[in-house]
Amino acid sequence: MSWKAQIGAAATRIAPYVQRTPVMITQSFGLSYSIEMKLEQLQHTGTFKARGAFNTLLSGPVPQAGIVAASGGNHGAAVAFAAQKLGHSAHIFVPEMAGPSKIALIERTGAQLTVVKGEYANAADAAAEYEAASGAMQIHAYDAPATVAGQGTCLAEWDEQGLQADTVLIAVGGGGLIGGALGWLAGARKVVAVEPVTSCALNAALAKGMPCDVQVSGVAANALGARKIGQICYDLATEHSCESVLVTDEAITAAQKALWQERRLLVEPAGAAALAALMSGAYTPAKDERVAVLLCGANIAPDPLA
Amino acid sequence: MSWKAQIGAAATRIAPYVQRTPVMITQSFGLSYSIEMKLEQLQHTGTFKARGAFNTLLSGPVPQAGIVAASGGNHGAAVAFAAQKLGHSAHIFVPEMAGPSKIALIERTGAQLTVVKGEYANAADAAAEYEAASGAMQIHAYDAPATVAGQGTCLAEWDEQGLQADTVLIAVGGGGLIGGALGWLAGARKVVAVEPVTSCALNAALAKGMPCDVQVSGVAANALGARKIGQICYDLATEHSCESVLVTDEAITAAQKALWQERRLLVEPAGAAALAALMSGAYTPAKDERVAVLLCGANIAPDPLA
Repeated sequence: MSWKAQIGAAATRIAPYVQRTPVMITQSFGLSYSIEMKLEQLQHTGTFKARGAFNTLLSGPVPQAGIVAASGGNHGAAVAFAAQKLGHSAHIFVPEMAGPSKIALIERTGAQLTVVKGEYANAADAAAEYEAASGAMQIHAYDAPATVAGQGTCLAEWDEQGLQADTVLIAVGGGGLIGGALGWLAGARKVVAVEPVTSCALNAALAKGMPCDVQVSGVAANALGARKIGQICYDLATEHSCESVLVTDEAITAAQKALWQERRLLVEPAGAAALAALMSGAYTPAKDERVAVLLCGANIAPDPLA
Repeated sequence: MSWKAQIGAAATRIAPYVQRTPVMITQSFGLSYSIEMKLEQLQHTGTFKARGAFNTLLSGPVPQAGIVAASGGNHGAAVAFAAQKLGHSAHIFVPEMAGPSKIALIERTGAQLTVVKGEYANAADAAAEYEAASGAMQIHAYDAPATVAGQGTCLAEWDEQGLQADTVLIAVGGGGLIGGALGWLAGARKVVAVEPVTSCALNAALAKGMPCDVQVSGVAANALGARKIGQICYDLATEHSCESVLVTDEAITAAQKALWQERRLLVEPAGAAALAALMSGAYTPAKDERVAVLLCGANIAPDPLA
């Protein structure tokens, strides 16, 4: 089945469970042109990741032992939320760097939570061990077809809402969201991958000609800090000649600040990365090129109301 | 000219200058039913008040001496923003209770700013003195036809975006926004006025049969703390038998927290008051009654990214 068909099927499957997120057109942030934005950070648990989690859980049988996931925080919260809504138990492994807000978000769902020392890869190892020992089903954060198809529904929904852009800018961590976007759009619109200079697994893979390990750090690392791009994303990015641009931590922080100060949208650093590419000039649209920015996450720390 | 006609004309007049704000449907916040929400807190300067400010400035000549406004903070920021965009000078008087975030917002526009000791009424007195001495044009925060017509465009826009609700809940301070809503809807939908127990100028006026002075305090006072309801609002509220409900500060704070935790919408207390009426049971919809909640402001302090 084509990616487009898989994503269409996923959209129907998850529709009763996910939040249809609003879209808007704005001229803000010091840009001389209007942009379309989709406010996907208003999704359940604050990121697009609830889409992939629901799609996976609804796509087949779930073992009695329940679900296991490793996560920088956002995927874990989404899996825990979806499992709870659908009546499954869940055990989530997060690295310490996930931070207190994301950890609290997971705890509120009632899932079992293990905080692992180190970075995302360490949490992934711990989750794999638990999977083998318990018989629980692992939901991969980005490199699994049902995850990618679920994330792709975000673009299917945006198309339905009247997306006009020639080009869509999307932040990339492990590549689940942009993989789904590339799969859904299938060349119909240009997709620009935006990564932090300090966490650029896709950019490095495209340069090397294959997925490879990278070092990860920086303000968006707890969401975008995958050490290796997913194979599914890599294959789709090469098939559709996805353009890759990099942004500094300073540019990400400036975009995050502008989103709040000018538009009262509070997002986490990863959620501001795509806009940062426009504000910093890392990506400059051609004359009359219409651009869209996907805001993908809002799980900031500390809690702004604490 | 009818209110409906005035508001329609205002919508055309201000369209190039205001942000068309997104709408969404959600089942969240522990409610057993879905609600429609308009995210008007994403308007320029973080509240609906830019609508009234632009409508006033575009409705007639502006004197050489510029604009003056008294404000709990939100109206002042909107007037300062609109004046700057349209090339007029502005002098804004705010009470100390406006708080650092709202004061910083006004300062960023480049307007002249005077912080007055005491509450809103003291700032209003100072603005009136300045108006008399300078010849500047005063823009009233709520009780002027051009202000009310401007705020009413928020509901006109929502209708255009497919509003389905039988009933719209709106927070009330001096009554500019709900006045405009009542004027636009003209009985076509039910409007419920939501005020804090601690700042309830409309509720008190409806009980007494005329606008009267009230004491103001509480978490939303710097936005909803008008000491007397506007005559325009009072007349429209009685004409359309507007229902009035009250919410406690605790209910407002709980709604504000739920908007962030469950939906990643960060609003100020005033912006959460209308939802608080549903969450607290101050207003309970009848079976099959469809309800909508207007989120009207997001100028919280302290700055969540500071």
